[in-house]
Amino acid sequence: MTRKIFAEGLGTAFLLATVVGSGIMAAKLAGGNTAIALLGNTIPTGAILVVLISIFGPVSGAHFNPLVTLAALLNRQMTAKKAAGYIAAQFIGALLGVIIAHAMFDLPLLQASTTPRSGGAQWLAEVVASFGLLTVIFLSIRNAPQHVAMNVGLYITAAYWFTASTSFANPAVTLARSFSDTFAGIRPEDILGFVLAQLTGAALALTVDRWVWNSR
Amino acid sequence: MTRKIFAEGLGTAFLLATVVGSGIMAAKLAGGNTAIALLGNTIPTGAILVVLISIFGPVSGAHFNPLVTLAALLNRQMTAKKAAGYIAAQFIGALLGVIIAHAMFDLPLLQASTTPRSGGAQWLAEVVASFGLLTVIFLSIRNAPQHVAMNVGLYITAAYWFTASTSFANPAVTLARSFSDTFAGIRPEDILGFVLAQLTGAALALTVDRWVWNSR
Amino acid sequence: MTRKIFAEGLGTAFLLATVVGSGIMAAKLAGGNTAIALLGNTIPTGAILVVLISIFGPVSGAHFNPLVTLAALLNRQMTAKKAAGYIAAQFIGALLGVIIAHAMFDLPLLQASTTPRSGGAQWLAEVVASFGLLTVIFLSIRNAPQHVAMNVGLYITAAYWFTASTSFANPAVTLARSFSDTFAGIRPEDILGFVLAQLTGAALALTVDRWVWNSR
Amino acid sequence: MTRKIFAEGLGTAFLLATVVGSGIMAAKLAGGNTAIALLGNTIPTGAILVVLISIFGPVSGAHFNPLVTLAALLNRQMTAKKAAGYIAAQFIGALLGVIIAHAMFDLPLLQASTTPRSGGAQWLAEVVASFGLLTVIFLSIRNAPQHVAMNVGLYITAAYWFTASTSFANPAVTLARSFSDTFAGIRPEDILGFVLAQLTGAALALTVDRWVWNSR
Repeated sequence: MTRKIFAEGLGTAFLLATVVGSGIMAAKLAGGNTAIALLGNTIPTGAILVVLISIFGPVSGAHFNPLVTLAALLNRQMTAKKAAGYIAAQFIGALLGVIIAHAMFDLPLLQASTTPRSGGAQWLAEVVASFGLLTVIFLSIRNAPQHVAMNVGLYITAAYWFTASTSFANPAVTLARSFSDTFAGIRPEDILGFVLAQLTGAALALTVDRWVWNSR
Repeated sequence: MTRKIFAEGLGTAFLLATVVGSGIMAAKLAGGNTAIALLGNTIPTGAILVVLISIFGPVSGAHFNPLVTLAALLNRQMTAKKAAGYIAAQFIGALLGVIIAHAMFDLPLLQASTTPRSGGAQWLAEVVASFGLLTVIFLSIRNAPQHVAMNVGLYITAAYWFTASTSFANPAVTLARSFSDTFAGIRPEDILGFVLAQLTGAALALTVDRWVWNSR
Repeated sequence: MTRKIFAEGLGTAFLLATVVGSGIMAAKLAGGNTAIALLGNTIPTGAILVVLISIFGPVSGAHFNPLVTLAALLNRQMTAKKAAGYIAAQFIGALLGVIIAHAMFDLPLLQASTTPRSGGAQWLAEVVASFGLLTVIFLSIRNAPQHVAMNVGLYITAAYWFTASTSFANPAVTLARSFSDTFAGIRPEDILGFVLAQLTGAALALTVDRWVWNSR
Repeated sequence: MTRKIFAEGLGTAFLLATVVGSGIMAAKLAGGNTAIALLGNTIPTGAILVVLISIFGPVSGAHFNPLVTLAALLNRQMTAKKAAGYIAAQFIGALLGVIIAHAMFDLPLLQASTTPRSGGAQWLAEVVASFGLLTVIFLSIRNAPQHVAMNVGLYITAAYWFTASTSFANPAVTLARSFSDTFAGIRPEDILGFVLAQLTGAALALTVDRWVWNSR
């Protein structure tokens, strides 16, 4: 059990260090061309997700995302106590990842983001992003179990571009990114809207999964 | 059957949301450098294709393309009724994907594209793109069945650049993209030429498949 | 036999259509930023190689390169007659690929390149590129047979950037590219130096393969 | 044994030729946009790592990195004599790779880098980069042995961007890059700090491996 919790925390920390760190690097080098900056943020994020899910999947399931853990709880694949441990590890790991990214780039360790991400279009984007992410995970596990890591990495690679919000799709990631006033940041006051949208998308994916994919 | 139709519709919707959405994002961020915009359109499209074919392939075959469904019909791998259902789902899903992309980026939900894509060179490009796509699908299924998803994603990644038309190669995609006056759009009056070229390329691929690859 | 020859021709045609076509598209869109143009040339070329080797490998071995066919001949894996057929198909297919690329972009079908690619540094680059390519092929076949396609695609992706010549590493590709006065071109008078360097690299790879990798 | 040593030397040479060569190419073409230059350095490096580990892994284990060899020695997976041979081959191969890259681009074969890479943030980045690399290797070997090559390539792809140091994570690579006054260089006086940080990261990864992943 300790090993699983540690895997969730360490994996989420590496995920956030990559999301925030590559965003800092990309924005610093891109000289104002945001498309290039987003490329430099997308490719590392997609790549590290494949790696992290590949190596931690056999340990903890490689959730790194409270939406995934909640879905597993609702599908009775884990106990409430275990789910609570996972989610705590994800939030703590995510915050540590942000702090480490800041430290590596010699920035204040904790910052308050000033990047506005709000409004109906952004929330719809998070609903779509989260619905898509969970659908990809559910169907990959069932239909292509050897490709879960690759599919999640490639899905997020795509979703950074096709969703207007650049696809947070993860409450732990959302909270942690509010502590970074860099490329990947989100204002604290915009967290709630994003998380509600993410929960909506996840609920939708669960519903479709039960009624369509998992029906007999 | 319902599940297969739903998979075709949902998959094609995600495909179009990605094609159109990433085009909007890329063009918005690239500041006039069209090569960077096309990169930001190509990488998500290739990535999502791998994911969608991987997760929906075992459900419906993951056609997402009337050319593929027509080929299956002509090869007597599905009934006319089933093919009609697939094709309807593809057209409806494609249109929904475009609408969702527009909604996520806070744009008018349905637009009339003004991007001209016409002339002999463009039509030849669509013949080549469609011939290549169907050849890749036919030969992957026969010679590398575990790599169909990867091969189609990588083929489209290449074809976005080596064909002058950026490789539509799909009548449902073509029609849907005419409803978007963004990076990925095509003028309504140019649809017919593209679709005829696509059908020509598909017919050529079917012919070569029967006479060369599938001969005894 | 006919099917193998056809596969070699068609595969090499698609390879060249991609190399030349994506070069034209990338240079046209990149607006003078050659690094972006090379990215737009590299990603499609690496991607299509994976696809072509994956689908044609089980048919003909997917040589698409006289160096590979010559090596197979020297290793007594094919007869001289069969090798001659392969090599003829590669040269003809390569030229057809260039013509198709030009036609798709509405350019003169046959052109004389004016891009100089010569001198000791460039020749050394072709020796290294060809030595590396054949070493990757030999060792992939022996040590990672299920990854030959991926390894060759990724090797060329890297070699476009780490060799000063952007890694032609293929006499049929070299000759065909001399007929294109676009991004991927090479002056006719520079072909001989490149081909001699490629043969040198191939001979080196064959020698190392016999003395080191294949020794007992 | 000779074959293993040769594989370590040749593989490390190709790795460094790629790191330094693609850095030269990318910086030359990118016209001052460092983000594009780093993309042109990242993609080839990640790609060649997948290839090299795939083809040389079954020969020598494909260490190409004294940190990996030291870890194997400490885990009693190889003798001190064999480890010394590996490490010597890595240092010599790395230097030869730099020389070949310079020769291919017609530059002085040995140069003294003037690029400063020093200070606490950079050292922390190297600790993180090395801890991550060895953790990825240890856990890939245990949990996803068929994906070691892919995971290492993708990890370095990410780490080039999320660590402030662009992730050297390898003492042989660090020394060799000090002989190149190009994009990938590092001042000789900064080597020691980097190598100490790398050893710290490796020691941390070994400790976590023993206490967490490998515990019973």
